Amino acid sequence: MQRIARAVQQGAAAFLRREYVYVAIFVVLVSALLLGLSSVPEFNLSPWTVVAFVSGALASGLAGFFGMQIAVRANSRTTQAASKSLDGGLRVAFASGSVMGTTVVSLALLGIGVLIIVLSGIKNDPQQVAGALTGFGFGGTAIAIFARVGGGIFTKAADVGADLVGKTEAGIPEDDPRNPAVIADNVGDNVGDVAGMGSDLFESYASSIIAAISLAVLSSGVAASGAGSTLGIGIPADKAGAAQAYPLLIAALGLIVSIGCTFLVRAQEGATQGQLLGSLRRGVYSASAIIAVLMIVVALLLDLGIGVAIAAIAGLLAGAGIGFSTEYFTSDTYRPTRYLAESSEGGPAIVIIQGIALGMLSVVVPALIVIVATLVAYSAAGLYGVAIAAVGMLSTLSITLATDAYGPVADNAGGIAEMSHLGKEVRERTDALDALGNTTAAVGKGFAIGSALMTALALIAAFVSVTGVQAINILDARLITGFILGGMLPLLFSAQTMTAVGKAARGVVVEVRRQFKEIPGLMEGKADPDYARCVAISTDNAIRQMILPGALAVAIPVLLILGARLARDTEFERFLGAETIVGMLIGSLLVAFMVAVLMANAGGAWDNAKKYIERGNLGGKGSAAHKAAVVGDTVGDPFKDTSGPSLNILLKLLAIVSLVMAPLLR
Amino acid sequence: MQRIARAVQQGAAAFLRREYVYVAIFVVLVSALLLGLSSVPEFNLSPWTVVAFVSGALASGLAGFFGMQIAVRANSRTTQAASKSLDGGLRVAFASGSVMGTTVVSLALLGIGVLIIVLSGIKNDPQQVAGALTGFGFGGTAIAIFARVGGGIFTKAADVGADLVGKTEAGIPEDDPRNPAVIADNVGDNVGDVAGMGSDLFESYASSIIAAISLAVLSSGVAASGAGSTLGIGIPADKAGAAQAYPLLIAALGLIVSIGCTFLVRAQEGATQGQLLGSLRRGVYSASAIIAVLMIVVALLLDLGIGVAIAAIAGLLAGAGIGFSTEYFTSDTYRPTRYLAESSEGGPAIVIIQGIALGMLSVVVPALIVIVATLVAYSAAGLYGVAIAAVGMLSTLSITLATDAYGPVADNAGGIAEMSHLGKEVRERTDALDALGNTTAAVGKGFAIGSALMTALALIAAFVSVTGVQAINILDARLITGFILGGMLPLLFSAQTMTAVGKAARGVVVEVRRQFKEIPGLMEGKADPDYARCVAISTDNAIRQMILPGALAVAIPVLLILGARLARDTEFERFLGAETIVGMLIGSLLVAFMVAVLMANAGGAWDNAKKYIERGNLGGKGSAAHKAAVVGDTVGDPFKDTSGPSLNILLKLLAIVSLVMAPLLR
Repeated sequence: MQRIARAVQQGAAAFLRREYVYVAIFVVLVSALLLGLSSVPEFNLSPWTVVAFVSGALASGLAGFFGMQIAVRANSRTTQAASKSLDGGLRVAFASGSVMGTTVVSLALLGIGVLIIVLSGIKNDPQQVAGALTGFGFGGTAIAIFARVGGGIFTKAADVGADLVGKTEAGIPEDDPRNPAVIADNVGDNVGDVAGMGSDLFESYASSIIAAISLAVLSSGVAASGAGSTLGIGIPADKAGAAQAYPLLIAALGLIVSIGCTFLVRAQEGATQGQLLGSLRRGVYSASAIIAVLMIVVALLLDLGIGVAIAAIAGLLAGAGIGFSTEYFTSDTYRPTRYLAESSEGGPAIVIIQGIALGMLSVVVPALIVIVATLVAYSAAGLYGVAIAAVGMLSTLSITLATDAYGPVADNAGGIAEMSHLGKEVRERTDALDALGNTTAAVGKGFAIGSALMTALALIAAFVSVTGVQAINILDARLITGFILGGMLPLLFSAQTMTAVGKAARGVVVEVRRQFKEIPGLMEGKADPDYARCVAISTDNAIRQMILPGALAVAIPVLLILGARLARDTEFERFLGAETIVGMLIGSLLVAFMVAVLMANAGGAWDNAKKYIERGNLGGKGSAAHKAAVVGDTVGDPFKDTSGPSLNILLKLLAIVSLVMAPLLR
Repeated sequence: MQRIARAVQQGAAAFLRREYVYVAIFVVLVSALLLGLSSVPEFNLSPWTVVAFVSGALASGLAGFFGMQIAVRANSRTTQAASKSLDGGLRVAFASGSVMGTTVVSLALLGIGVLIIVLSGIKNDPQQVAGALTGFGFGGTAIAIFARVGGGIFTKAADVGADLVGKTEAGIPEDDPRNPAVIADNVGDNVGDVAGMGSDLFESYASSIIAAISLAVLSSGVAASGAGSTLGIGIPADKAGAAQAYPLLIAALGLIVSIGCTFLVRAQEGATQGQLLGSLRRGVYSASAIIAVLMIVVALLLDLGIGVAIAAIAGLLAGAGIGFSTEYFTSDTYRPTRYLAESSEGGPAIVIIQGIALGMLSVVVPALIVIVATLVAYSAAGLYGVAIAAVGMLSTLSITLATDAYGPVADNAGGIAEMSHLGKEVRERTDALDALGNTTAAVGKGFAIGSALMTALALIAAFVSVTGVQAINILDARLITGFILGGMLPLLFSAQTMTAVGKAARGVVVEVRRQFKEIPGLMEGKADPDYARCVAISTDNAIRQMILPGALAVAIPVLLILGARLARDTEFERFLGAETIVGMLIGSLLVAFMVAVLMANAGGAWDNAKKYIERGNLGGKGSAAHKAAVVGDTVGDPFKDTSGPSLNILLKLLAIVSLVMAPLLR
């Protein structure tokens, strides 16, 4: 057991080392770009943005590092604890998830806090401070794009590579330690769901707070210039200070409440799935209820009025609602996935059609929830309210993320139990914990998309307020063409990430075949495979495949904003302006959100429909229905683990890059 | 041969009769609704809108009726002519397509012309005339929704039903006259590509002209109220009359030029696919070149300036560009479809992933084309320019549509040759004509989507100008929530149309099974199956399945506009207003366009990848690659023939209904 666990630890460490080398190169390149831009005085870009950018990257990178370290150490301990009791296993796995949640949230808050204090000391202009602060969110994105996009490609490439050669060609079972790619596969689970999810939510968390602060700062600037009400920020100038403090306060209180509520998570021996889920929910819902009360108290204490609290609570409820909607559409206890499983009797084509239809339908509820939350937040507290809704949704992140990060730990614990040939009872306990992890992972994905959308909305609000383009002609051709351009980007991006998995997997396949052939005694279990090489190859291939989509996502807003700046006051102003960027951001937000929900839910439902059949329904394993369901699941893999989650990053990346560069268009 | 042709004719007649009964009910219901609304004086809705609505429905219905009558008569004549020479076959098939093209265009122009003359005689207010005129476009939509959505479900339900029982269960070949659903299947080809495509483009054609006229009329009204330049319509008030005449003139000239150029389409015996395609293109490109010159001449004669001609030509080029992009992504002579075919060696899941990635990627080029065309048209002639670009794109519709409507005639001719056991030489000629039809069908689909988008843009421009909401806060929560709502609608709509095919097919399957069992001597070819009953059942089921999505598409804009009218000057104004509808229209435009292109191109590429393998590549028929490609093709069927094309209707329907009801929000 310890040997395998160590191999996973070493693999994870190898992955992180390699990844962080690429991240460092990226951070240096972007810093140089930002420095170059800030050296042009009329671009209004503060060089402190670079400092904030590097800090954000460091903080998110550290959070990912700690999270991975804990997760790959907690898995064998979970197996160990599960060999004694179910509650023990649950507690160890959940505690390790809590470390991830707490680390992400603490580092984000710490970074923002320190930056505000330092920057305010150096510059006495709140607007400059807020502008530089946006760099911190951008830094978080730099990590997220590698962990989520690169990691998403990595995890599926290793998975496909391991299965294709191991299961299909060599005929050895899944998770067999003789398979050279098995460790890469296990590392991949942690990369996707721990580091990927963590960095994704780090970014949402930091950016939503920064967007709220930026809007609060702008409201004071606006009042000074007397343009107040047209901006619709929703905060009177004399409350600007309190409005800056509010998001930080509820975030900090949310952290404390969440840590307290993690102790509510416990289970009795022989607990059903429902009871286990209930136990996790007890923790999350208690934290939400307490923080909701505190949101009101703090709003009243700061004399901000009840409106901001209403906005924050609207966000909190929307997050829970989107999570529940995701569960409804992807869990086999409800009608949609059951129906999908039944349709697999009609063959693979029918399963695909039904799955895509399910994914499309599943967009409706989250969209309606976002609509209601936005209307409520806006009418309660203006644009600032929209940003506060995003902060509110993420206020209990530390415990929400704990339930997500718990999943891969439990999954790995099961794998370790399998590979170490532990007793049936232990397997049953780890299976129960693993199944729970699948549900929380689906809910977590929905939550991540929803919070990405709200965060991006908040960032766009800040961008619009900074550049002052809000009152525009809705049919301005720049705006319309921006929409179409923005709507196209998520599709271009997804087309690349979907084909990236196949391309990255090829290298893994070649390497696994080589090791099977060249390492003597491997198949007999007498020699160890070279796990590290498989991890290294998966990492390199994944990073290579993410360069094009990643570069695109950074380059397009940068080029558009530079172009708009250069076009200003020239003949070309009619074709390109801040309006184009606003249109692009809103178009990409819309399409990325819809496609991300579609992909995540279709993928989740296909996965669970297959598992439902494997549990003996509709003919069980090996039936025609099962074969069809496997096709659905295979299509769903890049949907739910690579392309879908990558879109979260895309939509926030476009918005945060635009906001960082917004001073150019002021 | 004649017996089968007659059966198809009778089937088509039966389909049209049944369909038109439902259409009549729909028209009566909507007329009653419009009459009711127009009886409320403060709603500003002219009762003449109802007259225009009924006229539009009649005109489009007549065009569909003539087109179908000709198409189902031309098929056996094409077979007959093809038994003598390839040129003869091509000319007969193309001539029948030309009849459809000419009928659609003439009836649209005639309807609009007569309405303008009559309405101007009765009311002396151009704004009232233009308002009522929008009803004509809406009437066209009433037919289009039945022909395109209902017809799309019909054609695939009949196809699936015929194949499932005939090929799979009874083991008789495709297109076998003993199969009771074979006639419904043949009728379906005509319904989808003749009546569906025709009514879709009728609507685009009429609506784009109406939108241009509306904007021209508004420009005079605006100047009178002195708000001129902010509207950005782009036409000075004293040119309003000429600006109304311009779209009608270029449309009429386009008709004449197109008819002339149909005579350029001819072929030599033994012509290759490239030569056949070149021969069709000679006709289309000549017409385009001539009309481009005339666009300039007319613009100068009317003293409108060269700007409007530039806008019109931008539209014309955009249409050709989108058509070519579609061909590139779906024809197996180019890289994307070849690559897709190769990927089928990796199994069904890989084919699906690659096909969806191809579809996503294929959105990029048409999106860029639309962006450039919109920017050019807008900067050349303002919002009016955008509407004129749509008119320009459709100016050669009569010959473009001829190349589309030619397809199913050639397809049916091949089927008749097969069923009548004609010689190998004849089969080869009809096969060549059929293959050409597949290419033109794909190009036609791209063109239909592109023109739907430009038309919807023009309609939205008119809506915004009528309601006067153009200068708004881009971050108004109503606008943002409208975007999200609008973006969601195409997915909700597609989820329904995709599952509708399966549901409608069930009834056909039951009926075919019944006939095989109960009609004695059927399998031995001694008794005739009851073709008409299969047609009737397919029709009824298809219409039943389209009620929900169709009703949704009409009800949502109606309810939103009524709601916005009632919310006006109340507390609820903050949540619902004209801004919501504008947002909804733009959001739906964006998502519907992208999903429609994705679906049409992925479906077309899967289809051609399968055919490419069937021609002996990659292992040919029966290989594992072929089996995988068949799964792709089956998924692609509802994509390209039902859900994708239905989205054209959705996006125009939402816009035209909103424009018809726009006076409520004036």
